[in-house]
This record gives sequence, C-alpha cells and structure tokens, in this order.
Amino acid sequence: MAQRHPDRTDPTADDALARYLREQATEFLRALRQHRERGTEDTEAPALALRRAARRISGTLHTFRPLLDASWSDGLRTELAWLSGTLAREHGYAARQERLLAALQRLSGASALPGQGGYGGAGSSDAAAAPKPAERVAPAQGRSTLTVGAAKAGALLERQLTLSRTRAHSTALSALGSSRFHGVADSVAVLASEVPLRKEASAHRLEPFAADLAARLDEAVTALPLVRAGHPYNAEALVHGLAADTAPDSQDAPWHQVRLLLRLHRYAAEVTAATGGGPVHLLGAAEALDRHRDAAQAASAAAAAARTPRISPATAYALGVLHADQRHEVEAARFAFQGAWHLTPEASGALRTGGVPSP
Amino acid sequence: MAQRHPDRTDPTADDALARYLREQATEFLRALRQHRERGTEDTEAPALALRRAARRISGTLHTFRPLLDASWSDGLRTELAWLSGTLAREHGYAARQERLLAALQRLSGASALPGQGGYGGAGSSDAAAAPKPAERVAPAQGRSTLTVGAAKAGALLERQLTLSRTRAHSTALSALGSSRFHGVADSVAVLASEVPLRKEASAHRLEPFAADLAARLDEAVTALPLVRAGHPYNAEALVHGLAADTAPDSQDAPWHQVRLLLRLHRYAAEVTAATGGGPVHLLGAAEALDRHRDAAQAASAAAAAARTPRISPATAYALGVLHADQRHEVEAARFAFQGAWHLTPEASGALRTGGVPSP
Repeated sequence: MAQRHPDRTDPTADDALARYLREQATEFLRALRQHRERGTEDTEAPALALRRAARRISGTLHTFRPLLDASWSDGLRTELAWLSGTLAREHGYAARQERLLAALQRLSGASALPGQGGYGGAGSSDAAAAPKPAERVAPAQGRSTLTVGAAKAGALLERQLTLSRTRAHSTALSALGSSRFHGVADSVAVLASEVPLRKEASAHRLEPFAADLAARLDEAVTALPLVRAGHPYNAEALVHGLAADTAPDSQDAPWHQVRLLLRLHRYAAEVTAATGGGPVHLLGAAEALDRHRDAAQAASAAAAAARTPRISPATAYALGVLHADQRHEVEAARFAFQGAWHLTPEASGALRTGGVPSP
Repeated sequence: MAQRHPDRTDPTADDALARYLREQATEFLRALRQHRERGTEDTEAPALALRRAARRISGTLHTFRPLLDASWSDGLRTELAWLSGTLAREHGYAARQERLLAALQRLSGASALPGQGGYGGAGSSDAAAAPKPAERVAPAQGRSTLTVGAAKAGALLERQLTLSRTRAHSTALSALGSSRFHGVADSVAVLASEVPLRKEASAHRLEPFAADLAARLDEAVTALPLVRAGHPYNAEALVHGLAADTAPDSQDAPWHQVRLLLRLHRYAAEVTAATGGGPVHLLGAAEALDRHRDAAQAASAAAAAARTPRISPATAYALGVLHADQRHEVEAARFAFQGAWHLTPEASGALRTGGVPSP
C-alpha cells in the first residue's frame, strides 16, 4: 500500500481493475446461463450480453496488459475475439438486412417508420425534416409502390442475407457447444473469482494506461480527413464507387480503426471511473462511427448482390442506387463524427492528461 | 416629365426600359450576324449570345408588361421562348454528357480535372478537400481504371446524348433558317430602333414592377423546404429515387421555379440599375440553382439510359450509382442555395422595398 497516493481515498489500481474484470466475467457467465436456458429460441438478448461482456473483458485485458499475467490474458483475448466475432455475425446480417430493406422503402418514397426520412443525425430531429404525415404509409402499402427493380433487389437481398444469417446462426450454436467454447467459459469463470494480476500491479496507477490509449485515439483521429468530412456533400465516400479495386475498404479503414479505439477508450473509462476518472461523453462520436461501419457494410452487401449472376438490369440498377445511397450514409456519418468530436473534451486533448471533462 | 421625382437626376423609367431593350435587341442582332457568318462551324458562342439576349428581352417584356404594348410584346415573348428553347437544347445535351462522363470518372476514383473531387461549392475551395496530386490522373489513364459497367454506361450515355445533341443541332439550324425565325428577327429589329412603349409609360417608375417580382421571388423561396435543405445529408433528393412515378420532378419543380424568378429578378435589376437600383449579389444562389437543374437533368438522363433494352446488369448498376450520385448533387445544390440565400439582402426582404443592398 506504500505506492498509494496519500491524497486519494479511492481503491488501488489493482482493486479497481480486478473488480471490473470480475463484474464483466460474472455478466458473461450470467448471459451464458440465460442463453442455455432459452435453448434455440429468443437468444438474441443473451447473445448480445455475452458479446458485450466479452468485448469489455478483451478490451480491458488489452489496455491494462502490463498489470496482468501476459500469456494468460493474451490467450484469453484471442479466444474472446473468436467468440465475439462468431456471435456478432448473425446480428450483423440481420441488421444489414433491416437497414437495406428500410433504405429501399425510403428510396421508393415510402418511408414507413418515423426517422427513416433521412440519414438520421441532425436532420431527423428537425420537425421540418421529418417526413410529412401524408408521406408516411404502412409498410404493406409502401411495398406496393416499389418499382419492379426495387422489389426484386429487396427480394434478392432478403434471400441472400437470410441465408447468411441462418448459416451464421448455426455456426454460433455449434461454437457455443464446442469444447473450444467450454475452454473460454472456464477461463472466464477463473476471472470471475481470481483475476491473474501481476505482483507489482498494486504499484501502478490505471490512469497512465488510459492516457496512452487516449493518445493513440487522438493520434488516429488527427490522421482522419476531418476537414474534408466537415464539408457537407464532399462526395468523398463514393469517389471509388465504381472502381475496379476494393477502394472503399482502404478509405473506410482508418475510421473503423478509430471506432475500435473509441470503444477501448470507453471501456478504459469504465474501469478508471472507480479511481477518479470521470465519465466521458463520446456517445455521439461513437454512434456516428457505428453508423459509418453499418452503412459501409450495407453498401458492400448491395454491391455484392449486384454481382449475382443472371439478375435483371432493373434489379442491378436498384442495387446501384442503393449502394450509392449507403455510401452517402457513410459520408453523412463522417460529417456527424467530426461534428460530435469537436464537441468532446478529447478534441482538446483533455483526456490525454487524465483530466475530468467539464460538464 | 411631370412625374419625375424632383430629387432624381436618373433617366425616366421609359427611357431606362427602352434603352435596355434596345441594347439587348442590338446584342441579339449582332449575335445573329456572327452566327450566320460562321456557317455551320463554331457557332456555340454566337448561339449562347443569341439565347442570352433573347432571355433578357423576354424577361424584361414580362416584368414591365404594363408599360409596353401588351399584345405585341406577348407575341414576341412566345416566339423568343420558342427560339431560346430550340437553341438551348443542343447546349443542354452537351453539358449533360460532359457532366455525366466527368461523374463516371470521379466515381471510378479517377478524377482527371481539378474541382471534380467533390460536388463543387464549399468543398472545392478547400485545399484539403481537393483531390490529392497522386489521385489526379490523365483522362486516358483514368478511363482504363473504369470497371466494365462504368465504361459501358459511359459509352451508352455518350452514344445516346451525342445522338440527341446532333438532332438538336439540326433542329436549331433549321429553326434559324425558318420563316418563323425571320419573323422573330424582324420583331427584334423593330425593338432595336423603336421600343413599343405605352403612352402613359413615362408616368410610372420601374421600381414597383421590380419590387413585385422580388415579392414573388421571396414568396417562392419561402415556400421551399429550406430548413430541411439546410441539414446536410437529409437524403431528401433521393427519397423517390426508385419510385414508380416521376416523383423527382414534383420535388424539383419549386426549385426550378425559383431559378426562373431569380433570373427575371437579375434582368430587372439590370434594367433598374440605370435608375438607382443597385447591383444585386445573387450569383451564389443563382449558380446553386443552375447546378440543381443540371444535376436533376443529368440524373434523369442516367435513369432513362438504364431503361434502354438489353443492357447488361453491370451497365445498369453503374447507371444506378450515377443516378444516385447526381440526385445527391441536387441535394448538395439545395444546401448551397440555402446557404447563399441567407447571405443575400433578399433574405431579409430588402429588395422588396426597393432598397439598395449594403456592400
């Protein structure tokens, strides 16, 4: 206890870290129990909770690696990444299907749900920006106004994504019954009772590790083309929309990377909250990057569907419009991110010094 | 001369109006002479000058109609509208072809020309928003990076629009050789020497007519969905992109109408400039609406090309992306218009009262 700061009454770093990991491990085990109890039905919520806890454990093991038994936690992280990835796939296909079919409805002038009038963000909270009541129609009615191409594109996407989703569901179920998964569950059970901290962990504070992460985040955000993103309608996201190579991936990658760093940063803030670090208000920025990722994947799915052999030109045309629409959503999300980021204390480097953001 | 304002040394209303019409009529006749001297080659500049003068004469006859011999000027306006429309068509197809092929280059990640990196407007003046030097390639090289679909779409559009353009060129040449055109030229020649003013014209000021027009413009702008247009990425312009009906036309029409009123307003300002009305700075707003019109027409051309029988799905897909891209340009132009409009004295109603805008 000699290293404990004399002015602080907070728990020590190792206490806070161990408590957070134990909590998340307990969450993981609880979600797993629920998932098993429900059998094959209605497992979406427990699967979400499993992934949520897995991501937090994995992220925390990563950020505070020097305080933990390295080989044990590296091994667990690899296994948690496999598990999260496997569980996320089904949810991803479902979300992509929902997003693409909603976009097709909107593109057909038949937005059935509130808030589908635009790309979300600033526009949707404005009364004048919301679809007029007369424009809102029931989904069934909306469907009938689809052109042949839009209807065929919707049916094609529904078929392809449902198939992918079903496969992902089977894979996830197999994974949860595998001996590999039982190994992960055993490791997490260990974590729930006994966090493998290194002996010298109590000599450290958590903040420097969180600050390292904040610095990496800051650096990654600085490398983004934020000036361009701040100019609406810069047409950047679609600039390679018809290129032969997989160019969108290369322009999207730095944004995806910032999304992951923001997530790690949020988890680190959850850990350090107990030792004086304040809550951080990065939700707007994080949501924008989630939207960025979802739209980018939806745009890819539309492009992939257009490569299906023997589709009609009308279907292909609708998929082209849909692809471009989702790439513009990517651009809209970047615009929203730069707006949200400039409102955060991170933008002024406050978090790097471990400071508590002002309200 | 009794009605002349005692404080003014400006020419009377009828003097100013007659002088402006004479000037434009003279311009018209000069352009016509040049057009004839050049035969069938290189007639673009004279044709542009002809249309420019015809639009100004027609607009002025419309705005100041009560000061002029009504049946004579109504007859001439009808004929000038026919002539402008006929001459504009060739230019329109050429501009549309250029815009669509440039967009295909940009969408293939091969912007060859400066300023093609975005939709113009705010973005293009920003150094960070311009394409990086490494991204600029020669047109020939750019062409080779087009996907099969983009290349085929480009070839299809080039073929269709070149055909339309050639036909429009022939029609324009026939029109300029027709007896109907000679009738127009004779009327304009009359205007160049003797403007048919009504006797009581000298008893009026020009400003009330210009103010009426400004009020109509103001009313038309107020009816536009400017709040929505001011939210970037509102996805409004593409909302009917896949609808079965011709919905884009109905949402574009009020903007096209404002474009025409802005033009009339500019011509009226040119007339009244001699009697104390100041120059108006509506260029930004007018340019945005020109872009709006051009992009809307280009989007329609891409959609029309996609209805060509027996095109490949890859071609149709590229045309879908292109259509959506141009509809987003429509949305970008609306965003630019609302930004420009709020900077104009018109936005505060200054012109309606005939006031001179502050510098």
